[in-house]
Amino acid sequence: MGQYNQIAGQNLERLAALSDGIFAVAMTLLVIDLHAPASELIHNNAGLADALRDIIPQIIVFFMSFITLGIFWVGQQTQLNNLTSSDRDLTWLHLLFLVFVTLVPFSTDLMGSFIQYRLALLIYWGNILLLGAALFITWRYAVAKALVKPEMSAAVEAGIERRIIIAQSLYAFGAALCVFNTYYSLGFIVLVQLNYVFAPRVLGLNKL
Amino acid sequence: MGQYNQIAGQNLERLAALSDGIFAVAMTLLVIDLHAPASELIHNNAGLADALRDIIPQIIVFFMSFITLGIFWVGQQTQLNNLTSSDRDLTWLHLLFLVFVTLVPFSTDLMGSFIQYRLALLIYWGNILLLGAALFITWRYAVAKALVKPEMSAAVEAGIERRIIIAQSLYAFGAALCVFNTYYSLGFIVLVQLNYVFAPRVLGLNKL
Amino acid sequence: MGQYNQIAGQNLERLAALSDGIFAVAMTLLVIDLHAPASELIHNNAGLADALRDIIPQIIVFFMSFITLGIFWVGQQTQLNNLTSSDRDLTWLHLLFLVFVTLVPFSTDLMGSFIQYRLALLIYWGNILLLGAALFITWRYAVAKALVKPEMSAAVEAGIERRIIIAQSLYAFGAALCVFNTYYSLGFIVLVQLNYVFAPRVLGLNKL
Amino acid sequence: MGQYNQIAGQNLERLAALSDGIFAVAMTLLVIDLHAPASELIHNNAGLADALRDIIPQIIVFFMSFITLGIFWVGQQTQLNNLTSSDRDLTWLHLLFLVFVTLVPFSTDLMGSFIQYRLALLIYWGNILLLGAALFITWRYAVAKALVKPEMSAAVEAGIERRIIIAQSLYAFGAALCVFNTYYSLGFIVLVQLNYVFAPRVLGLNKL
Repeated sequence: MGQYNQIAGQNLERLAALSDGIFAVAMTLLVIDLHAPASELIHNNAGLADALRDIIPQIIVFFMSFITLGIFWVGQQTQLNNLTSSDRDLTWLHLLFLVFVTLVPFSTDLMGSFIQYRLALLIYWGNILLLGAALFITWRYAVAKALVKPEMSAAVEAGIERRIIIAQSLYAFGAALCVFNTYYSLGFIVLVQLNYVFAPRVLGLNKL
Repeated sequence: MGQYNQIAGQNLERLAALSDGIFAVAMTLLVIDLHAPASELIHNNAGLADALRDIIPQIIVFFMSFITLGIFWVGQQTQLNNLTSSDRDLTWLHLLFLVFVTLVPFSTDLMGSFIQYRLALLIYWGNILLLGAALFITWRYAVAKALVKPEMSAAVEAGIERRIIIAQSLYAFGAALCVFNTYYSLGFIVLVQLNYVFAPRVLGLNKL
Repeated sequence: MGQYNQIAGQNLERLAALSDGIFAVAMTLLVIDLHAPASELIHNNAGLADALRDIIPQIIVFFMSFITLGIFWVGQQTQLNNLTSSDRDLTWLHLLFLVFVTLVPFSTDLMGSFIQYRLALLIYWGNILLLGAALFITWRYAVAKALVKPEMSAAVEAGIERRIIIAQSLYAFGAALCVFNTYYSLGFIVLVQLNYVFAPRVLGLNKL
Repeated sequence: MGQYNQIAGQNLERLAALSDGIFAVAMTLLVIDLHAPASELIHNNAGLADALRDIIPQIIVFFMSFITLGIFWVGQQTQLNNLTSSDRDLTWLHLLFLVFVTLVPFSTDLMGSFIQYRLALLIYWGNILLLGAALFITWRYAVAKALVKPEMSAAVEAGIERRIIIAQSLYAFGAALCVFNTYYSLGFIVLVQLNYVFAPRVLGLNKL
């Protein structure tokens, strides 16, 4: 049985394939909650325009969640590209990360529907926090077990951890802004995300 | 025609790719039944909190099914990683396994909605049983047809089978607990699963 | 522009990856129409059992469609495994095949809901016919353009075509049985499919 | 941190895998809006035929969107096949392209439901325009950063750009026809798409 655990979950390629699949489905499912308005209520172009204007908050949350998933996909693939192999426990830690990925369409739906309520925002932020925590743990474990490619410098290793901690601190600060207003939180989180997408140029926060 | 059967279904990579795809979709679809509550019924944070408290059983069943799929994904990939090639019949046996994977979102939905009824629990357990049986058969077939990598020791081969049998015995015992109460069954099954995830450390059952 | 057409669509691996993805999603979406019964109508185990008995036809159609998709997945991958490369037109012919794959959940849903009406059965059969026709054309094209691996004998090449023609003749005969009763058609089609799954042993039709 | 950006997003294979996954899900989700008619309203073959006749516009839009996705999938894979590597920014530009891919099921649903309204058509066209613009930008960026395979001639490089510009001009012309009637637009767009699928033979527009 111990021998089973030694041969289980070693294949990095299949872990990457499962991860890409889950990200692909989650990213595409985000759009499922953007329904075309019910056609019997709409009688002209203006009616359609009004109905679409009503779902603008959902569309913004949709883009935000796509960016969230994009950031974490890049983060996970950067880790996986720099491993020499996996083991059973690391595979399960990545599955832990992936379960939080599959929850993003749910927390997005919640946020799009209840954008004015603090609880919806806190759940959304909680999802981002869990994604970040899981990705931090997978990396720490890989470093501790020497599963990381030997050519990777200690500076880069530390950089990956620092990056996660700074990003999560910014997200936590954004979430805390919901004490004042959930829209402040939302706006700040979007800014943090755009900084990570356009990182090396716009806000310069990535030099922190 | 016989020649067709000799060249059909040999490609392990594509079988792995299809499997990863089906697992990815099934894992992500689990969340589809976790709907945000209807927004017209909710007027403040407390209302949203109440509505979310109502879906806690579904959320627990969601996590349990994600773990179920994770366990069987690790189990299947461990098998596929240790094969030298496939043949037409082994491919169909894996498709049999995959059809039970696609049923997991359905049996999960049933279990989340009717957690108090024995029938829902028995169907859920039946799904796990069929997954285990299919995985047992694929392995037996691969060993019998000498499709397994030659460096694999007989001890590991036997270990894979024993592991499935012990796990299924534990699941069956858990299902039998529904004679008393379906929540006992649920709790026991969750414990068995957590043991397999954290296997080498927590309960020590994996030494059996 | 002509040069663009020479470099477009050459990558067999990505065509295989897209195909596996579409098959994986289609196979898993089949189950989407198997909903858990509405919980407010059900008050005990017997009520749940009754509700589940009502969806038995859908469950049978679900399994039949999974087998349909499995047969065509094996058929397509057998073709792709035996090609040296693709070109732009062959890629589009496979996309034609894949559009009929994505229609299977729709024709399955139709068949599960209207199993007693000839039209639903004819649409389902039409879907199988289009899948077979597309797969026949992709193969003919690949042979004509010499994209097939040179080690493949003419006998196997002809076998792939003959196999499709015989299968489609059997499906057409099954569909024609709906003149009497759609259930005869359904039963015959299931038998043909099982013959292809268990091909070399059960009915011996594969010697035809 | 700068070092993180140097190692992030380099893996072309995983970008291709994520892209194939997203295209596969989006292509298969298109069919989700083709529902079987409600069974309680239908009492015979003729009733079913009538109900299906009502969804013919949706079926046409479904095929059009599948072709749209097919054209852009071929376009993106042609680019990716001709790169030597990716970098962080190119990865994000492809994620920008992919977000527009995930929106296709939404704009398709809108178009199928409101085919007579100019706004639905303009949104659909806007989606195609954004797909084309994103693919143009990814290519320009890859050429500028010398990420393209060295054996690729300048003529082919320019051909890829010219192809996108001509296609988008034709789509824009088609969209402009909605000044007269949205069906003219739809018909023209379908013609442009068929030209690209059957490119080297039918309309000869690809010689432009």
